[in-house]
Parts: sequence; structure tokens; C-alpha cells
Amino acid sequence: MRHAIEPIIRRAARLMLDFANPAVYDKGRHADFVTEADVAVQEFLIQQLSVVFPQARFLAEEGEGQQLTDGFTFIIDPIDGTTNYFRHRRCSMISIGAVEDRQPVFGMALDPYRDELFYAEPGRGAWCNDTRLRVADVPLERALIGFGTAPYYEELFDLTGRTFVALLPQVADIRRTGSACMELCDVASGRSDGHFEWRLQPWDYCAATLLVEEAGGKCGNILGGPVTYDSAIPHMAASARVFDALQALLQRAYRADP
Amino acid sequence: MRHAIEPIIRRAARLMLDFANPAVYDKGRHADFVTEADVAVQEFLIQQLSVVFPQARFLAEEGEGQQLTDGFTFIIDPIDGTTNYFRHRRCSMISIGAVEDRQPVFGMALDPYRDELFYAEPGRGAWCNDTRLRVADVPLERALIGFGTAPYYEELFDLTGRTFVALLPQVADIRRTGSACMELCDVASGRSDGHFEWRLQPWDYCAATLLVEEAGGKCGNILGGPVTYDSAIPHMAASARVFDALQALLQRAYRADP
Repeated sequence: MRHAIEPIIRRAARLMLDFANPAVYDKGRHADFVTEADVAVQEFLIQQLSVVFPQARFLAEEGEGQQLTDGFTFIIDPIDGTTNYFRHRRCSMISIGAVEDRQPVFGMALDPYRDELFYAEPGRGAWCNDTRLRVADVPLERALIGFGTAPYYEELFDLTGRTFVALLPQVADIRRTGSACMELCDVASGRSDGHFEWRLQPWDYCAATLLVEEAGGKCGNILGGPVTYDSAIPHMAASARVFDALQALLQRAYRADP
Repeated sequence: MRHAIEPIIRRAARLMLDFANPAVYDKGRHADFVTEADVAVQEFLIQQLSVVFPQARFLAEEGEGQQLTDGFTFIIDPIDGTTNYFRHRRCSMISIGAVEDRQPVFGMALDPYRDELFYAEPGRGAWCNDTRLRVADVPLERALIGFGTAPYYEELFDLTGRTFVALLPQVADIRRTGSACMELCDVASGRSDGHFEWRLQPWDYCAATLLVEEAGGKCGNILGGPVTYDSAIPHMAASARVFDALQALLQRAYRADP
């Protein structure tokens, strides 16, 4: 699948970078923005992927009313890190995952600014360009943990704040880049040790979850159980070394258990 | 001064990038690391700048016992974002500021990964490569605010946590890149709207403070008064649009005043 999809994601990246100052629209919730580029890139990806995979279904960020079935489905974020994109922070990715029977079968994410192409297929490893990825092996007290603030969901601000307060003294430091896909790729490539967000959508994590797992890391629902792809979940990913301790810490924060 | 210092900072960047896997040493405090590259880059900068500016004094991150005088003094961070550097996150900067009579007279910061050279002199504007910089004009409720966690100072974790909780609902979102210099350059270039850290060292903010001010923004001590350069302060920078409201919000968090 890589060779079929790579030319499409690379052309989508050129389209994305061609917008010098894309028009920004408010999606109604707190800090929830979309640009004309998100819409254009998504339309391009769906149109192009449909030619090569005519049987494919699609679940994508800028769509509505889509539901996951057991069929072969692309799960797409045309621009992960939209705010970074229109603020010219050069920290956004195009993410294309695919599931069949609700299980991941392919993941690809492109950082068009650094020209880093991440991809994974089950049992075949995770790669960045020509380098095979391995998660890091750093203990929690020296770990770097990325997180998302779930900024669209004001009802989660208290929980996110409580988690931040619980986490900071237990790790080396935290990061917040504004692209969940990039922070998950950071976990896969050993540039950080974990990432979590209390409500993350499948298009944010579908491709990158497979990348982390194929790089030897673990992903899951923060509150327990595996990652699912039909709706938003409390999502976490971490190196094998850190996963259980980080999950326990996040669960204690959820229960407001000091 | 730009033409004298630019070749030196560019050669320092090559030295920095030449270390594939630099040895990392613990400086004793929480999450406080130094690599052999920080030491080598600092020695190179001091040695080279001393040739061109034989009268110059130096205040630098990896030094000890230095004190600021009224004389012409370079204030240097050889690698701002050391943890990012040895975790291969490609988000670190070399920062060279200069003060005379304790006032900034020059600021330059290089992002060697993106090849972005930021520089400013009083009254002559702030620049990134050949582009003149202007801060953004976004209101606080749509603002992107970067912050530092002051990770070396465990006694500040409560304050940093309280600030995060107070800030998140009042702005669009927050960022934490792990390089104060880069986040201050982001303010200068309009890629974000503000940045603060409850204890920041002069070598972290000296060059970038001038950049923000020359780009039309404001910098200060969070608790009031101007930026000083002889010891760590609670440092903040923001666009003119956001500065006063952000400072008031941070001061309320300091007083634990909901």
C-alpha cells in the first residue's frame, strides 16, 4: 500500500503548502478552527484515494455523519495541527490511516516541513523515510511526555489541568506541540516517551497508533482497554518502559486521587 | 554587529549539529541536563567572539560565578533547548544577546534546523532572515500562549500548575516547545501571542527580549517592572494587544486569586 499512497500524500502536501494565507473559519466550539486548506486537502485525498481504492470508505475530520463499518476504511486528518498551520508554526501533519474489520491495517503521516514520511503496516515495522523506528527506553522520572489539551471541550479543562499538575513532578518535562499526530510520531521515533489527550478523535490517532505499536510501543484507552476507531476516546501512547506507570498516574488524576 | 557575529553563530551551529549522539550529564537538579555539545559550543562562541570583541565580558549558561557589570557583555545560551537537542527533537536555538550599561544592544538567535536567523538592534527592527518581524494582533481569547515549566525548580511546580489551570480556559490554546528562546522568537514573528516562565535565566531571554520589543511587542517581569539581566526573573513577553491582560491573569494566578 505504501507505494500507492505515498505519491498521493506528497501531492496533498504541495497543495497544503501552496496556501500562503488560508482563510480561517470558526467551527463553533472553543478554539476549533478550519481553514480552506483543510477542506481542499481532504477533498483531494478522498478523490485520489477513491481512484486507487474504489471500494474504500472514508472517515475524515472535515466530514459529517460518517460511521465506521467493518469494511476497508481510510481514516484521514487532512491537516493535523490546524492552528499551527494558519499561525505559520510549521508543525502540522497529513495523516492517513486505514482500518479493516475495525483493526488498523496501514498508517502514514507526512511532515511536509521537515520532509519526514512516517509509515507502518502490521508486522512490517514502523519507518521514518528509510530509518526503522524504535521507541525509547527511558524511565518515567526522566521521561518527556507530550499531551493535548482537548481545547474544543471546555468541560475537560479541569481534568486536563489536574492531570498536568499531577504529571509535572513525576517526569522530566512535558511538551505541547499542537499536533497529536506529530507527538505520537515523536513517541514512535523515541523523541519523547509518551503522549495522551483526554478526548482524541480517530483521525488524530489512527495512523500514528499503528506507528507507535510497530515501533515497539503501546497504545490504549487511558481508562483501560484497547484503542477503538469509531469515536473519540481518552487516548494514550507510550514506550513499553513507561506505559503502565503513565496510565496509572493518569487514572489517579482522573479519579482526583492524590 | 550583525555581520561580525553571523559567521560565528553559523559556525557554532555546524559544531552543534556535528554531534550525532552527544554525551549527556546531569547537572544535579530536576531535569537539568548538559551535553558535551553545550560545553563545546559555548567555548567556541566565547573564544571566537573574544577575538572580534576583545573588551567583551561574558555571561553564559554553562559558566559559573559570573556577574553582570555595566560593561559590554555577551549573554549566551549555547544550546537553548538542551533536552530537545539530545532527544533529537530538532527544536533548539543558539542565542547570543549583548548588553551595555545593563541594557540590550544586540540580539541574535539561530534555529539551525530550519535555517532561521533572528536578529535585532535597538531602533533598527527585528528580522528573521530577510523578513521584518511584527508581533500578532490577536485578542487574548483567541491567543496562543507558550510557557516554560521551570522544570529545574521543583518549588515552582505548584505555581506553574496553578497558572496552567487559570490560563487554559482564557486563551485559544497553550504551547510548550521546550525552548524559551524559540517561543520568544515565535512571539516576535507572530506565530504565537505570548510566552512566560516563572523563573527564566538571562541567557534564555536576553537576545529574544530585544527581538520581541523591536517587533512591536512588550516584555517585562511578570510581577511588574522591566526586564533585568543580572539574574533569573519571572519573565513574560507578549504582543502589545495581549500583554496587559496576560500579565493581570498571571499575577492573579500567583496570588492564587481565582
